Amino acid sequence: MWQALLNNLGKDNHKSLARAISLVENEQDGWLPFLSQLPAGSARLVGITGPPGAGKSTLVDALIGEWVADGKKVGVLCVDPSSPFNLGAVLGDRIRMNQWYNHPNVYIRSLASRGSLGGLNQMIIEITAVMQAAGFDYILVETIGIGQSEVEIAGLADTTVLVLVPEAGDEIQTMKAGVMEIADIFVVNKSDRPDADRFVNNLRLMMAPAFSQQERTIPVIKTIADKKEGIQELKDAIRKDAAHEELNNDRKVWLLTNRVMQIIQRLRMKDVQPAVISEKIREELATGQFNLFRIASQF
Amino acid sequence: MWQALLNNLGKDNHKSLARAISLVENEQDGWLPFLSQLPAGSARLVGITGPPGAGKSTLVDALIGEWVADGKKVGVLCVDPSSPFNLGAVLGDRIRMNQWYNHPNVYIRSLASRGSLGGLNQMIIEITAVMQAAGFDYILVETIGIGQSEVEIAGLADTTVLVLVPEAGDEIQTMKAGVMEIADIFVVNKSDRPDADRFVNNLRLMMAPAFSQQERTIPVIKTIADKKEGIQELKDAIRKDAAHEELNNDRKVWLLTNRVMQIIQRLRMKDVQPAVISEKIREELATGQFNLFRIASQF
Repeated sequence: MWQALLNNLGKDNHKSLARAISLVENEQDGWLPFLSQLPAGSARLVGITGPPGAGKSTLVDALIGEWVADGKKVGVLCVDPSSPFNLGAVLGDRIRMNQWYNHPNVYIRSLASRGSLGGLNQMIIEITAVMQAAGFDYILVETIGIGQSEVEIAGLADTTVLVLVPEAGDEIQTMKAGVMEIADIFVVNKSDRPDADRFVNNLRLMMAPAFSQQERTIPVIKTIADKKEGIQELKDAIRKDAAHEELNNDRKVWLLTNRVMQIIQRLRMKDVQPAVISEKIREELATGQFNLFRIASQF
Repeated sequence: MWQALLNNLGKDNHKSLARAISLVENEQDGWLPFLSQLPAGSARLVGITGPPGAGKSTLVDALIGEWVADGKKVGVLCVDPSSPFNLGAVLGDRIRMNQWYNHPNVYIRSLASRGSLGGLNQMIIEITAVMQAAGFDYILVETIGIGQSEVEIAGLADTTVLVLVPEAGDEIQTMKAGVMEIADIFVVNKSDRPDADRFVNNLRLMMAPAFSQQERTIPVIKTIADKKEGIQELKDAIRKDAAHEELNNDRKVWLLTNRVMQIIQRLRMKDVQPAVISEKIREELATGQFNLFRIASQF
């Protein structure tokens, strides 16, 4: 089964790909040897993140259009927030992307974050590795909602695009310390809104090397995604970012180290059953001698 | 040294507390036995989260005022986003809270998120456990910035307060699936802004049991934090949430299980050196036979 999937990953209209992702996601027997055999692939992994309402889905839709017109193959992962309490997921319907669901060069998959404590799907590294092997030119990972860690996506993506809207002006001062630094590219979407130019100019000033401690100027792209304006510029910026990274092997190694760390972590935690821990917690709570670290030491 | 700290945790004007937190944060020899000896404490752990610009710090400041007036002891942890790239941290100055820094019943500490992939400080469970043992009535954990996982705070806090502003109206549809469900209490701050009432009413409708799959109605509190309006109501809602949880032991066990899982994870990953992984990655990249899972299998 796994061998057949491996052979057909980039073929059969994404059927084997879809199946392989599902099997890996469920850690079906043989998933780890399967992953260890995957060819590396050369897809560029692009993360699209930002606050809700910034227009990320519309932007992704427009980007797919640009790339498909260039004859590129595009994979899209949409990570939806799910509840940590019921471990179920309400997968968002992305109406704007509907036109791409049956296109032979486009594969779109929604993933729930499945109650992981961070914001991304726990198996996202594995899933993107499977997609890498399927021969895409670009893999877009879109995260929706403020319940997800933009910092986490930066650890996964080759290029991280942070989408903002002009109203975000007041918040930049707060964001700068952490979130702003994850962006390889800024997009100011809905840039026909009032004050957009002032916002863009301030952002550009802030992101110039003198202020931002970055070695280069982080591009700030103005878009109006629902009118397809600025998309070509964004596409160019993504291509240039890839070229820049060729020169910057350290960053690539850092990204890959992060991914390997997460895989090791998952493998080492496989035997830890939350239900067993909960049982011990109930016991200790009943005795009144409760201590988190004493319980943890038993595993 | 550790024994002296243990004896003086709740005394000496927070000096031993501050020292113990620093030592634990740096995993100084003996930190784990120290943590295993800590008494449980009965502080209520309240998470304050929400998008930047919602007024969380002002709200925290006002809440401290209410509690201190009631004779309560309050600990505050402010988690600041830090860069994943330089592993340094720019600690935000919280001017609004300045008046509390020297109050004998208040202890405020800023923590950087220290480049963890999630948004919270990697040692936050350990640090809150130390604070628990210092005899506070309330421990507030405030997270700033969209680069932090609101879902993560819900796994830590006994009561999670999600702070929104009326402008968030458009975004609620997107947020509902995941983030909305983490809230035990909603605060609509800056509720003197236009359209605030409509927003609050919609939110209340959405959070009624019929729609939200919650067993009870999640309170929605209107505040104007910088005028101290609505703070008393928020204080009452936090107290009622604690009373509700007494009845709901399952949720408490779930929260504690999460914390134990994170502690185990950290203990098991202690020996994994990112530098060693990076070295292996460089070797495999050089051979052109790169595979993440093959590298991870070696650890």
